[in-house]
Amino acid sequence: MARFFKKRIENKGLAPGALVFIGQKKLDQPLLGLHHYGPENYDQEEPNPADLRLPEAKYEKRWLNVVGLHDARLMDNIQEQFGLHPLAMEDVMNTGQRAKFEEFDDHLFITLKMLQFDDKKGLVQSEQLSLVFADDFLISFQEQEGDVFDPVRQRLAEGKGLIRKRSCDYLAYALLDTVVDSYIYLVEHMGEKIDDLELRVLDSPDESIVAEINTYKRELHFVMKVLKPVKDLMGGIIRSNSPYIHKKEVLPYFKDLEGLVLHTLESVDTYRNLLSDYLNLYHTSISTKMNDIMRVLTIFSAIFIPLSFFAGVYGTNFEYFPELHYKYSYFIFWGMILAVAISMLWYFRRKKWF
Amino acid sequence: MARFFKKRIENKGLAPGALVFIGQKKLDQPLLGLHHYGPENYDQEEPNPADLRLPEAKYEKRWLNVVGLHDARLMDNIQEQFGLHPLAMEDVMNTGQRAKFEEFDDHLFITLKMLQFDDKKGLVQSEQLSLVFADDFLISFQEQEGDVFDPVRQRLAEGKGLIRKRSCDYLAYALLDTVVDSYIYLVEHMGEKIDDLELRVLDSPDESIVAEINTYKRELHFVMKVLKPVKDLMGGIIRSNSPYIHKKEVLPYFKDLEGLVLHTLESVDTYRNLLSDYLNLYHTSISTKMNDIMRVLTIFSAIFIPLSFFAGVYGTNFEYFPELHYKYSYFIFWGMILAVAISMLWYFRRKKWF
Amino acid sequence: MARFFKKRIENKGLAPGALVFIGQKKLDQPLLGLHHYGPENYDQEEPNPADLRLPEAKYEKRWLNVVGLHDARLMDNIQEQFGLHPLAMEDVMNTGQRAKFEEFDDHLFITLKMLQFDDKKGLVQSEQLSLVFADDFLISFQEQEGDVFDPVRQRLAEGKGLIRKRSCDYLAYALLDTVVDSYIYLVEHMGEKIDDLELRVLDSPDESIVAEINTYKRELHFVMKVLKPVKDLMGGIIRSNSPYIHKKEVLPYFKDLEGLVLHTLESVDTYRNLLSDYLNLYHTSISTKMNDIMRVLTIFSAIFIPLSFFAGVYGTNFEYFPELHYKYSYFIFWGMILAVAISMLWYFRRKKWF
Amino acid sequence: MARFFKKRIENKGLAPGALVFIGQKKLDQPLLGLHHYGPENYDQEEPNPADLRLPEAKYEKRWLNVVGLHDARLMDNIQEQFGLHPLAMEDVMNTGQRAKFEEFDDHLFITLKMLQFDDKKGLVQSEQLSLVFADDFLISFQEQEGDVFDPVRQRLAEGKGLIRKRSCDYLAYALLDTVVDSYIYLVEHMGEKIDDLELRVLDSPDESIVAEINTYKRELHFVMKVLKPVKDLMGGIIRSNSPYIHKKEVLPYFKDLEGLVLHTLESVDTYRNLLSDYLNLYHTSISTKMNDIMRVLTIFSAIFIPLSFFAGVYGTNFEYFPELHYKYSYFIFWGMILAVAISMLWYFRRKKWF
Amino acid sequence: MARFFKKRIENKGLAPGALVFIGQKKLDQPLLGLHHYGPENYDQEEPNPADLRLPEAKYEKRWLNVVGLHDARLMDNIQEQFGLHPLAMEDVMNTGQRAKFEEFDDHLFITLKMLQFDDKKGLVQSEQLSLVFADDFLISFQEQEGDVFDPVRQRLAEGKGLIRKRSCDYLAYALLDTVVDSYIYLVEHMGEKIDDLELRVLDSPDESIVAEINTYKRELHFVMKVLKPVKDLMGGIIRSNSPYIHKKEVLPYFKDLEGLVLHTLESVDTYRNLLSDYLNLYHTSISTKMNDIMRVLTIFSAIFIPLSFFAGVYGTNFEYFPELHYKYSYFIFWGMILAVAISMLWYFRRKKWF
Repeated sequence: MARFFKKRIENKGLAPGALVFIGQKKLDQPLLGLHHYGPENYDQEEPNPADLRLPEAKYEKRWLNVVGLHDARLMDNIQEQFGLHPLAMEDVMNTGQRAKFEEFDDHLFITLKMLQFDDKKGLVQSEQLSLVFADDFLISFQEQEGDVFDPVRQRLAEGKGLIRKRSCDYLAYALLDTVVDSYIYLVEHMGEKIDDLELRVLDSPDESIVAEINTYKRELHFVMKVLKPVKDLMGGIIRSNSPYIHKKEVLPYFKDLEGLVLHTLESVDTYRNLLSDYLNLYHTSISTKMNDIMRVLTIFSAIFIPLSFFAGVYGTNFEYFPELHYKYSYFIFWGMILAVAISMLWYFRRKKWF
Repeated sequence: MARFFKKRIENKGLAPGALVFIGQKKLDQPLLGLHHYGPENYDQEEPNPADLRLPEAKYEKRWLNVVGLHDARLMDNIQEQFGLHPLAMEDVMNTGQRAKFEEFDDHLFITLKMLQFDDKKGLVQSEQLSLVFADDFLISFQEQEGDVFDPVRQRLAEGKGLIRKRSCDYLAYALLDTVVDSYIYLVEHMGEKIDDLELRVLDSPDESIVAEINTYKRELHFVMKVLKPVKDLMGGIIRSNSPYIHKKEVLPYFKDLEGLVLHTLESVDTYRNLLSDYLNLYHTSISTKMNDIMRVLTIFSAIFIPLSFFAGVYGTNFEYFPELHYKYSYFIFWGMILAVAISMLWYFRRKKWF
Repeated sequence: MARFFKKRIENKGLAPGALVFIGQKKLDQPLLGLHHYGPENYDQEEPNPADLRLPEAKYEKRWLNVVGLHDARLMDNIQEQFGLHPLAMEDVMNTGQRAKFEEFDDHLFITLKMLQFDDKKGLVQSEQLSLVFADDFLISFQEQEGDVFDPVRQRLAEGKGLIRKRSCDYLAYALLDTVVDSYIYLVEHMGEKIDDLELRVLDSPDESIVAEINTYKRELHFVMKVLKPVKDLMGGIIRSNSPYIHKKEVLPYFKDLEGLVLHTLESVDTYRNLLSDYLNLYHTSISTKMNDIMRVLTIFSAIFIPLSFFAGVYGTNFEYFPELHYKYSYFIFWGMILAVAISMLWYFRRKKWF
Repeated sequence: MARFFKKRIENKGLAPGALVFIGQKKLDQPLLGLHHYGPENYDQEEPNPADLRLPEAKYEKRWLNVVGLHDARLMDNIQEQFGLHPLAMEDVMNTGQRAKFEEFDDHLFITLKMLQFDDKKGLVQSEQLSLVFADDFLISFQEQEGDVFDPVRQRLAEGKGLIRKRSCDYLAYALLDTVVDSYIYLVEHMGEKIDDLELRVLDSPDESIVAEINTYKRELHFVMKVLKPVKDLMGGIIRSNSPYIHKKEVLPYFKDLEGLVLHTLESVDTYRNLLSDYLNLYHTSISTKMNDIMRVLTIFSAIFIPLSFFAGVYGTNFEYFPELHYKYSYFIFWGMILAVAISMLWYFRRKKWF
Repeated sequence: MARFFKKRIENKGLAPGALVFIGQKKLDQPLLGLHHYGPENYDQEEPNPADLRLPEAKYEKRWLNVVGLHDARLMDNIQEQFGLHPLAMEDVMNTGQRAKFEEFDDHLFITLKMLQFDDKKGLVQSEQLSLVFADDFLISFQEQEGDVFDPVRQRLAEGKGLIRKRSCDYLAYALLDTVVDSYIYLVEHMGEKIDDLELRVLDSPDESIVAEINTYKRELHFVMKVLKPVKDLMGGIIRSNSPYIHKKEVLPYFKDLEGLVLHTLESVDTYRNLLSDYLNLYHTSISTKMNDIMRVLTIFSAIFIPLSFFAGVYGTNFEYFPELHYKYSYFIFWGMILAVAISMLWYFRRKKWF
């Protein structure tokens, strides 16, 4: 459950802006990827994170991708060379952040979570991504190595589309687009698993399915909690007056992204509703079954209890007991038993009790 | 359940704006219908989708109706000749869109779903409709052939009403009006079926009705999900400052449409409330019936169990058992049994237990 | 349930603005009432609906009351002579409208429902009222004849109060005031009936009361659905900048009306809460009673079942059964039975099981 | 339940502004209290309500307190002499008002409810208070005599604090402050009684507590209904641009009052949540107890039923029944009975069934 | 429950602004801490609360920390010397305040609660903190001595970070930051305890866990109630136009704080959802277990009841009872008993009843 609330407490009382990594170290050594690009050019290098100075810009724009957030000295270096705001850097290094968009004088700051469904554990895994960008540079901070940005790198390298022609806000859009795609993929993937539950609820409802439904509900609640601030973030970008967001060029793209996030949120909501319906279906089905059993068994007992009484009567040892001595008493007795049983069955059936 | 969340994932990582069809191909060959019209004139032709160039405008305004969205080359052609924004084209071809209204510099873009209730499957079917329009042209994109726009075509041909006199925003309104009518018809149709459920719940509640109620709830949830963004879309058009929306002429019409969408949404909400009430009614009725059965049977058992005990007592084999030897013991025994049974019945009745 | 969603579908595909009556024809022949009035004068006449032209205005202001909406020719006549907007006329003739306020260039348009509780059917009946007005005329459209506007007519005739001195917006207010009074009366009337339910739930809960509670819930839901847009309508009038609303003179009156509608809506909400509470009370009371019965009967059985066992033991036919032959065995047996029964009763009582 | 919705219907159809008292007459004869005051002076007199003219102002400001609202002639008098708006007077005399703040040209109008918990009836009692004020006069209208304003009178008489120095808006604040105090006292008082319920639910849950919880829920709903518009009223005063509200001097005081109302509303909400929790606690506790009883008794029966069967077997009268003739059969029978009973107990215990 | 609603009633009717302490006196003698600081200097002293005058400012800025709020004379002194608004002082001394931010002409006022989880009582404890500040002074009022501000004092003393360079709004931020940290720590701490509940619900559900879950729910409701106005407070600071908030310098810090409060509120919400899920899980698990028991026992009884009947039949004393005299009757009887029992077991199994 630590996913629900990452600890910020270790640096309680520290001066705000002090760079302390908060989270789980997922990498030994940070990795750097530096992409130089302009409308006509593209170059890539992998600077040594131990170097004191990052390479100069070769072309118009630079994208620095930092993987691994725990190296405070490297972070200090980056902060200083790009003139980043201390609060932005603090947020980068605290992996327990809520998605947000912050405007500073010299650059913009975005932080949000990438999500992935871990099929083995049946849990949603999250990784924090932070972007700092102005017109001519963008720095992305990830916790773990991964191939999620490969298509963007490829488009940069090949110069397809608008990505090399536009300012870094378009690059930021392209990266956010892959993140939103990861949300859509996740919800789709969970959705398929949730759809499968319906048949199981209808066919063979057992208690394990309740646990499973509750797990999915909790995971979707977690996804909701991650996505809701992303919606606000998109709204913030769209309404921003920062010069680093070129309204005419990139606004439709961010609006498109906001629409996708909204759509995903609505789908999460739909699946949560489905899960609640399944839970109700399960309870209805269980209690219908239980009612059926109890009804049948109680009818069963109700028929035999008076019969036992009659048998008991003819088992008494009264000395003067006329019926016992008639020749056909025993057969009359069985006839009476059957008559009682059948008329009770008939009555219960007429009452539609079984 | 694929209706709840259409996959956009296949083009994950592609450059935004790349034209890829996302959805189920419902037609082999796209169909084109081109309507030329002006206040005084009207002409119609069906261009070959394989042609490189679309015919020139004959009169003041043009309406191009495209059926079938999977032919990327045709889409490229249309985009180029009308100068459409890449994002609009991308949204046209992705059938998993949320209804939206987008303003671009040279045209406006609307996408939404048409809905139909498939009585055989008991499911709501949806088809995506996209409109791109400026003052002098409108392009509509549908997934499937259908006769839903026939009345509009007829009004164009006959020149009745305002449709030929106004700009293409009025044509857009006329098309949206047929879509909203399809919503109203759908909700009405489902509403009649839902009304029928009430009697069945009251008369012969069985478990199958729960499944049916749940199906309708899910379908109405789906309709709600489709309609809510349509409300926003209408609001967007009404508040728009685009020169392609002629406030004085068409605003009242769009406001009227917004009112109808609101009304329909409220009706969906009403029917969802009714379904919840039916579900509660069902559960109350089932549990009342079960309670009745259990109560009667338990009273039944409770009466015979002590009687059996008394029979058992007189069935014991004690050697010194005075009552057994009296002449009228057996009849006294029966009298006692009846007295106990009747006084218990009287007591339970007085307590209003049955 | 047709009240929940009146059909607009019959004119699917017709040109907007075509005058088609949608609803149930409640009157054979439309009735017209024309009131001429000014600060000092008042005159009334009843024009023949078949006449081609309506009488000219005699004094400063005119109020035309139209009862019966199905005569399309009359409607055409009125539309033409007063220069009404086609959409307004379309809404007048469609009785399945949501309450709304619309501003046109030459007049204002209001449509809403009057409500009445039909005690016989136990249902809320609604009738649509539409008002079109400018400074010097007001046209009201009703579905049925009724005496609801008589007090307004009387005030006009007697010249009491402000009604003859002010523009037609004040007349519109006076008419809306009677409609809002009808809402208040309705909710009050239903409220009294709902209050009566409480005692019945507490005294003699039977299943019929659940049906009754559900009926009231549904009717209140319907009232809510009718009243909510009326609240928006009032807000629209208050915020309107139309020259036909004289802010200084009539605004406080419309604000007062809005307050009454709000108050009524809150009361509807209160009664819905009460009904839910009654339903819970009913279920609690039923399940408490059922629990009591089951508990007592189960205790009853639990006492006699072991006693029967003991009787059974002494009814076995073992040859070597020492107790059977002692002289006082039978009386000891009864003593044991009583001891077991009493100690069980004592134990259950101490456990507070009955 | 008349508290929930006071009738306005008696004057249905009357001209708005006609002064008709709506409510329960709580006093035979209206009482007047007239306070003249200025920064340095204070004088009090009790004019005869039958007098045609009220005394002239002696000092800068006047506060007229009217107790009893049913004397239409007196009301007419006051309206005329102070030039009050007819709608304000109508609202004063209708005790079924929703709290509201209305700005007229020559004065401001406030109406709201004072609340008191009647311990005997267990109900919240309400009394309507209306204030009309401008810079130099304030008229307060109460339904009943009471000592609630005594501290304000005393502060006026003693000249403590700001009350004599400021305009009448400060006096209005001082009066509203005592009303808000009455809300706080009420909620506190009910809160203590609600807190006491918790122990009773835990210790001795019986059905009467459900009725009590429901009563408190309904009363708190009533308090909520009264307080919510008071919050809006405060907001209206704070945002008002009327010259009779001296922003610089009294705004912080009204903001303070708004905070207290908010706080009180939140506390009402908290107590409603507590009551729902108690109800759930009660149901859980009842059903746990019932489950315990049923489980123990069913286990009890389940043990004796097979034992009875075995006793029955040895009570059969088969001629060739070998076991019956062995010497130790009877004791072996008892051993078997005990073995079966103990192994069943052991099994049920291992399954944690009791 | 007094935490939910602190009494303000004792000073009912007092002039607003009269300084009366409302709360629980937690300290005998108030403590003062006075910190003088400027960009280059820092000095600290502990003035005697009984002194009539506080020491003059030594450097540019002063921070006066007051612990213990019950000494009205001291409060009067402070109010006079710093020229504080009477309403601010009244709020400082009333410990039952809702968090709020108030702008006065000469200073700003903030009041909110610090929270702590008392593990022994299992309750959340709250302490009120009020801040009054302008550019060159800040006064903080606490109820109890504590070390929560020690890190801030240390940073002041050491001159690290921005704290000595900026105006007192930054100091206010630093203090609020420690308070928000206390919220985060609290929610984290409660969250760990709540997470532990899940296993207990799954492993050994007993009734005590329901009480525990309800306690946590109530405590989280209390935390929610405290935090929600803190969110508004932060929003108020961010949107404030007061000259004492230096937008450029401190706004990002307050926005950061607002984000943390939002995040904490969402986590509280998450934990409340988890608790509801646990409660449902508990009820499901209890009722599943109960169902299992009842089903098995009822099946058990249902099998033995007909067997007992058969034994009863062969225990009757009919004179002419042919079966009793056959040699193998007894063994046939046992065979029949077994056949009946086994076929019933088989039937119930096939029906999946156990």
